[in-house]
Amino acid sequence: MKINKSDIENLERRYRGTFFNSLAGYKQAFLIGTQSVVGLQNLAIFNSLIHIGASPALYGVLFRPDTVQRDTLKNILETGFYTFNFVETKDWEKAHQTSAKYENSVSEFEEVGFQAEVTTSFFAPFVQESPIKIGLKFESKIEIPQNGTILVIGSIETIELADNLVSADGYVDLEKAHVLGCVGLDAYFEPKTIGRLSYAKADKWPEKI
Amino acid sequence: MKINKSDIENLERRYRGTFFNSLAGYKQAFLIGTQSVVGLQNLAIFNSLIHIGASPALYGVLFRPDTVQRDTLKNILETGFYTFNFVETKDWEKAHQTSAKYENSVSEFEEVGFQAEVTTSFFAPFVQESPIKIGLKFESKIEIPQNGTILVIGSIETIELADNLVSADGYVDLEKAHVLGCVGLDAYFEPKTIGRLSYAKADKWPEKI
Repeated sequence: MKINKSDIENLERRYRGTFFNSLAGYKQAFLIGTQSVVGLQNLAIFNSLIHIGASPALYGVLFRPDTVQRDTLKNILETGFYTFNFVETKDWEKAHQTSAKYENSVSEFEEVGFQAEVTTSFFAPFVQESPIKIGLKFESKIEIPQNGTILVIGSIETIELADNLVSADGYVDLEKAHVLGCVGLDAYFEPKTIGRLSYAKADKWPEKI
Repeated sequence: MKINKSDIENLERRYRGTFFNSLAGYKQAFLIGTQSVVGLQNLAIFNSLIHIGASPALYGVLFRPDTVQRDTLKNILETGFYTFNFVETKDWEKAHQTSAKYENSVSEFEEVGFQAEVTTSFFAPFVQESPIKIGLKFESKIEIPQNGTILVIGSIETIELADNLVSADGYVDLEKAHVLGCVGLDAYFEPKTIGRLSYAKADKWPEKI
């Protein structure tokens, strides 16, 4: 099928949302853990982890203005700290369930059955079951003028993962850790690695590494 | 392993780049096709497709300030049009090879062996072999203050994909089209779909759909 701009504008609202979310391709599913100023824990699934830079190490995440995920944004802005927790494929249903609209006073950790890992050295809770845990400090937010979407940028303060997931050159093997991926807002996958390729050069075809 | 902020700062530059790029998780690999004001075609692989919104339909892509990909950015800013082309898994080596530093005057289409699909109705070239082709019009760019990275936002003008990839509710089945995914700058995967889940509600566990 071929779709043009006027076809797009005529798509039914929910169809259009599902279509453009899934058309955007493979994403990293991850749980953001936060704690409110009065000590309530919050956990919610996201799919928009954006690699902003490695030096300094900065990751971004997008927040849509009209979603349930606003508890997470509020906590990040008020406390300055949050965690990214990757999910094992076996926990895909629990991870998805964190997107339900629970009351503010409800902890999604308890409701869906993840264990909150609280340390004295970091304000926000991690997910104990997570194979890859990243602690971030809020740096800045940028509003996208076209639709009010908010890009939140954080610096990476702490990372925890098993030694055997990291190759000698720094590559992190997500498949080995059974890390869950997602497409759109409701589809989940596991990866089957095809391979890695050497740095591409104009005079030479890349080699498998 | 546990890594803190000072460990991160002490990582060797290339190790750190590989580490944080791969740690950022599963991404959509895609080729951006552009044409310069003097008619030279350009094709380059990217991994930072960002879903900005469905209504209006907007996708973003990140450009790092110091990379080979600046030809693409220059063409987008000067001509206003560009294409996103997903890649079949069998073409993973050709797609990777577009990241080599070719001279400005060289067309990556010809060098790596993709066929440019030029139409009278769209300024930028598509990749004929691509199972999913998206034509975009430049809307705006936002510079990330921390490191000069540039977020380019475009509105979706045209989409072409096979009818049988789209479900009745608008979901696009990328696995069925053998769409290539990537991790970091040099690792590639194909997905194995686990399933889709119903919209999460606080009083009910999600169901497979």
